[in-house]
Amino acid sequence: MKQSQLFAKTRKEAPSDEVAKNAQLLIRAGFIHKEMAGVYSYLPLGLRVFNNIANIIREEMNTIGGQEVQLTALQEKALWEKTDRWDDEKVDNWFKTKLKNDTELGLGFTHEEPLTNIMRDHVRSHKDLPMLAYQIQTKFRNELRSKSGLMRGREFSMKDLYSFARTEEEHEALYAKARGAYVRIFERVGLSDITKIAFASGGVFSKYSEEFQTISDAGEDVIYVDEKKNIAVNQEVYTDDVLKDLGLDKGELVEYKSIETGNIFSLGTKFSEPLNLTFKDESEKDVPVIMGSYGIGVGRLMGALVEVLSDEKGIVWPEEVAPFAIHLIQIGNDDKVHAHATEMYETLTARGVEVLFDERDIRPGAKFADSDLFGIPMRAVISEKTMAEGKIETTNRKTGKTTMINEAEFLKAQHV
Amino acid sequence: MKQSQLFAKTRKEAPSDEVAKNAQLLIRAGFIHKEMAGVYSYLPLGLRVFNNIANIIREEMNTIGGQEVQLTALQEKALWEKTDRWDDEKVDNWFKTKLKNDTELGLGFTHEEPLTNIMRDHVRSHKDLPMLAYQIQTKFRNELRSKSGLMRGREFSMKDLYSFARTEEEHEALYAKARGAYVRIFERVGLSDITKIAFASGGVFSKYSEEFQTISDAGEDVIYVDEKKNIAVNQEVYTDDVLKDLGLDKGELVEYKSIETGNIFSLGTKFSEPLNLTFKDESEKDVPVIMGSYGIGVGRLMGALVEVLSDEKGIVWPEEVAPFAIHLIQIGNDDKVHAHATEMYETLTARGVEVLFDERDIRPGAKFADSDLFGIPMRAVISEKTMAEGKIETTNRKTGKTTMINEAEFLKAQHV
Repeated sequence: MKQSQLFAKTRKEAPSDEVAKNAQLLIRAGFIHKEMAGVYSYLPLGLRVFNNIANIIREEMNTIGGQEVQLTALQEKALWEKTDRWDDEKVDNWFKTKLKNDTELGLGFTHEEPLTNIMRDHVRSHKDLPMLAYQIQTKFRNELRSKSGLMRGREFSMKDLYSFARTEEEHEALYAKARGAYVRIFERVGLSDITKIAFASGGVFSKYSEEFQTISDAGEDVIYVDEKKNIAVNQEVYTDDVLKDLGLDKGELVEYKSIETGNIFSLGTKFSEPLNLTFKDESEKDVPVIMGSYGIGVGRLMGALVEVLSDEKGIVWPEEVAPFAIHLIQIGNDDKVHAHATEMYETLTARGVEVLFDERDIRPGAKFADSDLFGIPMRAVISEKTMAEGKIETTNRKTGKTTMINEAEFLKAQHV
Repeated sequence: MKQSQLFAKTRKEAPSDEVAKNAQLLIRAGFIHKEMAGVYSYLPLGLRVFNNIANIIREEMNTIGGQEVQLTALQEKALWEKTDRWDDEKVDNWFKTKLKNDTELGLGFTHEEPLTNIMRDHVRSHKDLPMLAYQIQTKFRNELRSKSGLMRGREFSMKDLYSFARTEEEHEALYAKARGAYVRIFERVGLSDITKIAFASGGVFSKYSEEFQTISDAGEDVIYVDEKKNIAVNQEVYTDDVLKDLGLDKGELVEYKSIETGNIFSLGTKFSEPLNLTFKDESEKDVPVIMGSYGIGVGRLMGALVEVLSDEKGIVWPEEVAPFAIHLIQIGNDDKVHAHATEMYETLTARGVEVLFDERDIRPGAKFADSDLFGIPMRAVISEKTMAEGKIETTNRKTGKTTMINEAEFLKAQHV
């Protein structure tokens, strides 16, 4: 796409009330727009990144046999009363609203209840299980405070996967599959090095849950990591009993602030019993389904990437999630340079390479500043100077390394 | 995908309170789940159709240079007060909610206000225009009654495009582009024959708006069509003055019930003036931007397709939106038949053809009933009988025409 036609403009300052680095940079770069605290609209470049992350997650969910669905925000009181999660005393972050006839409705902050309820129509016999279903859908959470940018939204998009199993063993197998998919997602978005799987509080049905915690000073969580054993523990279960249970020694643990970028839960029959989701086993007996739930906030992951990978000049996107692969910049407004850069843009685009082409008639410094802010992995510059040498100047956004390379060689290396 | 693993099961009866044919069939086929009146979750097959329709719309929006964004549901009072659309006396279908500190919020029923507001950050000079921006996003409308299934949702997904122009002439050009994209969308989803562009009420800034009205007895609208002149008029502007203005003769008009599947509006400066969206023209004067808005309900279009194309046996999807291209059915549970059908399934899938493979061990009648209900364009049957002849039996869902065809020939015709 040509940068002169781009919807959003960069700006020097983020809104003065925005304290989170991820939101400051993403707003300055024109990737998102702040509607109110914890509520952000996605502009074209931001939506491209969002969709790239969502598609990585979607692919990994499909790979383990997850079937995609799309549930609704509007929720009925009667359903959530069955699990005792309607009352604002029990769940303190509901947004509630009303139909014209005064019927109270809620805006879903999660979807265990409605999906379990739907499954009742579709699970009859033991042959209908196991099942994995997921969605990438908007959640609403009425947070008292929300100042972490994309990392704590009042309205945000989440991938939530739910597993439905016949036995505890089958559940463990599904849980292991989902856990493996999460590990691959964090690898693909470039966060595996600094993301730890931490034991966290479980519930009635399991001793612990597991959280994917990405180490960052911007995080709201604290974890303790045994680097040698590669085990981490969330502060909320950092007790002598738990450490003993996990075979950990306080002296070996290092404390980090971290962002909870994913979590996986064994739910047992916590939802299937009150909502009466059962299947007939081989002896025709009704048995409650054993469930698990597995969440990743898509926007939160995007925010975390900005928090941990950006530098003083701007954002640094990993290749797999970047809005474009190449930021092609024309320097000077000479007709020959413009014609040549345009030809390069068209050649790359025709090959399916995603290119943002800065053909604007503005000074080079402003172009480079925008380019650093955007964080596209490779910058490629065409100017009178590069043309004289038959070369193109590429710069790696992450390392800052600049290379002059023959155009033919450069083109040879660019394919999808 | 193998049908035995499919999330949703078909059923003989839709919920007893469901009167709309589109919802009845889609629920029976396991494409959607009714959460409450006007609020439906999409199950895997339904989501596939939804995404196919959304992608057709997205492609046509991108073709005319539309840039995709994603705005939020949560809306602030102050913004909507500026255009006098906050008060429930003025707009009667708001869902309202509250933050913890009692700040009132609304759930967006449309997005002229927030997008105009965002544009203020990104439009400065005349060089920043024209601009087309769109989203495929969830709207909330607190309808008093909602009994038309997917065709009148309280929560539903809409593609809304907005145009921003410098002059009336430039606006007319953008409007014509958007109108052309709509015409192509209706062609691609297979509704162009029975969809009329009808004059409807305009507003302060334009004499008329235009509606895409799909003729159907399930519709809530009434239009009058002059078939020869290919002009239609919505009942709401069916007056002697309007007919005279449009050069129509009452005697030539045929009355139809119809579904409003799309609408396009010239907005003039209705939103840019109160929200102060201006650009500096070449003489540095601040000039209000001229806007248009263009909507298509994605779910409504899906519902309309079911209303107008289904038959007594079930749904009939056009090829471009069908959840799968081929419904491959294995008849009998003979090992050889199963192995052969599985090989066919894998061959087709490897070629990128989307196949639903019914390998279930149930009676043929039940398989055919499901197949008719699902509405996949081509059914392909493999049985001992077809194998004995080296053939495959295909049936066109729409025409009912059955053909025995050599497997080699059949395979040759299947590619993406």
